[in-house]
Amino acid sequence: MQILDGKVTAAQIRLELSEVVKERKLQGKKIPHLAAILVGNDGGSVTYVNAKVKACEEIGFESTLIRYDDSVPEDILLAKVQALNEDKSIDGFIVQLPLPAHIDEQKVTLAIDPKKDVDGFHPMNLGNMLLDIPGFICATPAGIMELLERNNIETEGKNCVIIGRSNIVGTPLSLLLGRNKSPGNCTVTLAHSRTQHLAEICGNADILIAAIGQPGFITADMVKEGAVVVDVGTTRIEDPTKISGWRLAGDVDFEGVAPKTSFISPVPGGVGPMTIASLMMNTLKAMELKGK
Amino acid sequence: MQILDGKVTAAQIRLELSEVVKERKLQGKKIPHLAAILVGNDGGSVTYVNAKVKACEEIGFESTLIRYDDSVPEDILLAKVQALNEDKSIDGFIVQLPLPAHIDEQKVTLAIDPKKDVDGFHPMNLGNMLLDIPGFICATPAGIMELLERNNIETEGKNCVIIGRSNIVGTPLSLLLGRNKSPGNCTVTLAHSRTQHLAEICGNADILIAAIGQPGFITADMVKEGAVVVDVGTTRIEDPTKISGWRLAGDVDFEGVAPKTSFISPVPGGVGPMTIASLMMNTLKAMELKGK
Repeated sequence: MQILDGKVTAAQIRLELSEVVKERKLQGKKIPHLAAILVGNDGGSVTYVNAKVKACEEIGFESTLIRYDDSVPEDILLAKVQALNEDKSIDGFIVQLPLPAHIDEQKVTLAIDPKKDVDGFHPMNLGNMLLDIPGFICATPAGIMELLERNNIETEGKNCVIIGRSNIVGTPLSLLLGRNKSPGNCTVTLAHSRTQHLAEICGNADILIAAIGQPGFITADMVKEGAVVVDVGTTRIEDPTKISGWRLAGDVDFEGVAPKTSFISPVPGGVGPMTIASLMMNTLKAMELKGK
Repeated sequence: MQILDGKVTAAQIRLELSEVVKERKLQGKKIPHLAAILVGNDGGSVTYVNAKVKACEEIGFESTLIRYDDSVPEDILLAKVQALNEDKSIDGFIVQLPLPAHIDEQKVTLAIDPKKDVDGFHPMNLGNMLLDIPGFICATPAGIMELLERNNIETEGKNCVIIGRSNIVGTPLSLLLGRNKSPGNCTVTLAHSRTQHLAEICGNADILIAAIGQPGFITADMVKEGAVVVDVGTTRIEDPTKISGWRLAGDVDFEGVAPKTSFISPVPGGVGPMTIASLMMNTLKAMELKGK
């Protein structure tokens, strides 16, 4: 069993990106600039956005963090999105989800210029991904593809089972792993809450990807000997032994499952760091797609 | 075994649409208007476009057919697309594919206003489909969903295997059948040319959909007893007993497979008529989405 170490792989990507930045600086070229809008004080959101800003700093990207109170009216937020769309110094930006209930998330997502939508949540970018037209692939699926590729995981012709059909992880990932590319060319089964005989289906997977948000859901009896297991779960559970009072738990019962696998990604330190690395890659791409 | 009769189901849809047209006429409202651009004289394309125009006539929709010679320059075609985008009398239009080699199909597809893209090929419409935002679903997948729904085929929790991952059939259909809706909620496996152990995978399918374009590819040994089989294949093969010299052949060995199935769609008379019926439904929707 080998660990699919997202921390190490993401660090390698950040290093490569920092080399690009250095080179661009030497040539007097523009440095990629990511902006993030954060509404409210949700603990998870604050942590994620801070990690994104920190990654920018480490790589040498410029970053701008725009914070609003929970009570910000929708039209103020939409006006800021429009301003960022028009701001030529900003290459890409994200609006950290979830948003407060009084704001229509879909409206905000649709307001973002697809050319600056480095989260890849805009329908135009999802459609471009489906058609293999250049654009932005959502950061988590893109990060998983990168993790597999950089760790030389063979995907061609493999049976892949993805559990969880969210718009930002399971569904786009099923398209990426199934398409005629490398990595890709898997025979993908997308399973979900209505799936019957799930354990049996998982047991046929050469590559098993869990993205359901239920700690420890995948147990050893559901996993084929020698499978590659990727754990996308990041549920905060109480843990009095931690200073924060919580720890992140994946969807996979790591201790039970790991010995049966050929490769397994841990939580934390697996998919999470890769998501942020993908966002950085998308930000560079946003600048490059503009021809700068 | 029962036939999934696309001819009968499509006729029912056309009847319903003609009732809508009558009602709109009585109320002095606008009648849906579909335009089609046909380039060249490819036999299949001419047949399809004629069938679409004929369906419009039968329902009472207005239709406009625009024909160009094979040698039409790309910029002339793009200018016509732009003109149709701006023409308020036209609710939706299609550019019949394939186009001659000197024309960039993707460029043409991207030039169509997504709000008039009743074929549902624009990335914005594919992305909207993925996110379940109102828009146009490609006619063939939408037609198959309609065929299943109107024939009361239970999909919830079923194992569905789709063979063929094209952008206009297999891939979008996998999203539709897998999503949390009715019909939908299948556990979908998308198989393709790189899939290993295909016969075994097909043998587990409660619903088997063949969209590969290889006549007779699906044989009885690949089909589970009692399965629902949908045949999307439409390959023209020589047949000297026909006046035209050819007949349409599906991907399924109908004679061998049919006795094992609970439901099976024939070729011709299965998915084909449903595709055209879907295009008509999309045209009405295009008008309604504009609030007319």
